[in-house]
Amino acid sequence: MTGSAVAAGLWVTFEGGDGSGKTTQAALLQEWIEGTGRTVVRTREPGGTEVGVLVRDIVLHHRGDIAPRAEALLYAADRAHHVETLVRPALDRGEVVIQDRYLDSSVAYQGAGRVLDAGEVRDLSLWATGGALPDVTVLLDLDPGAARARLDADDKPFDRLESEKADFHARVREAFLALAAAEPGRFLVLDATRPIDELAADIRRRLQPLL
Amino acid sequence: MTGSAVAAGLWVTFEGGDGSGKTTQAALLQEWIEGTGRTVVRTREPGGTEVGVLVRDIVLHHRGDIAPRAEALLYAADRAHHVETLVRPALDRGEVVIQDRYLDSSVAYQGAGRVLDAGEVRDLSLWATGGALPDVTVLLDLDPGAARARLDADDKPFDRLESEKADFHARVREAFLALAAAEPGRFLVLDATRPIDELAADIRRRLQPLL
Repeated sequence: MTGSAVAAGLWVTFEGGDGSGKTTQAALLQEWIEGTGRTVVRTREPGGTEVGVLVRDIVLHHRGDIAPRAEALLYAADRAHHVETLVRPALDRGEVVIQDRYLDSSVAYQGAGRVLDAGEVRDLSLWATGGALPDVTVLLDLDPGAARARLDADDKPFDRLESEKADFHARVREAFLALAAAEPGRFLVLDATRPIDELAADIRRRLQPLL
Repeated sequence: MTGSAVAAGLWVTFEGGDGSGKTTQAALLQEWIEGTGRTVVRTREPGGTEVGVLVRDIVLHHRGDIAPRAEALLYAADRAHHVETLVRPALDRGEVVIQDRYLDSSVAYQGAGRVLDAGEVRDLSLWATGGALPDVTVLLDLDPGAARARLDADDKPFDRLESEKADFHARVREAFLALAAAEPGRFLVLDATRPIDELAADIRRRLQPLL
């Protein structure tokens, strides 16, 4: 964990679009690491703490009516509290933290929304957490167009809203891939269309030397 | 209003410690301005919007259990939403916004808490609002030691917690005065121990040319 003097634990985050298999892989990873005798903390953002649940409720309940910078600040507040009160203490105890989504999701989704600057969103998250970054981030990469096309095998045409959504998810994917390219040491990028057990084996191989 | 192309309205904020008379002076100012035929919006931070009320509930309910950066980010989120959805639209309609507390309170209180850097708190607020600053900020300056001494005329000794609180409020006051000294064009600093009608007259005199 960057930005922490004591880093006895291991911090792994999962990133990727909805439906890319993050939950499945996180569960398999937890099972394997617990089998080695290590304590695992499974958590998520937003909503990994009591305060975070309240913050997430505001964002989800008022989605669309909330100023874009206010939304970014609420996600950052959730993150600040989550890292300070849950992630850092677990790592200091030498535990393994497996987390669904972290700052890369904020940068990719809020940046893809084209209202906020991706670099500013990243700086905000880093200020929130005192610069904390995971040891390893697993990106489960999935082409949203291909996934969508498989679902729409009946070939009905997209309406405008569907088309805008597809564009948005394509930008999110590109943003994730750009983040991974900028930090190859932290990211493990995997093709999410591969078989579940092969993906799990690749993740174990990447983490084995760190355990 | 700084940072806005259209600034037909007038934005006045009141700052100072609790009990310095902000509410009394804001009410007198509202009455006087409405007498001139202008529309006045009275508002506050935190909690000036529906989203802001929810944010304030989190901060107040979890006070002490919330990470300091998370608290700063929640206040900034309230501010971002408040300025974007309430203050800016009112100013664009040419109305007068009279507001209880703004970013100077965040800088003074959070900076005086000695956990966060005052400059970083200010930068966060300015990012939240796109750099929006009031036309005039009235600081009702009150020596917390003197106020306290008058309340404690029976001369009972302070306990440690009381003493720490007194130190904190003294630092808040110093921070407000330093902010005012750095922006003499925006601030009107008044001695809050003066008679109410004299203070109100000074505030009217300062605002008259801007109406």
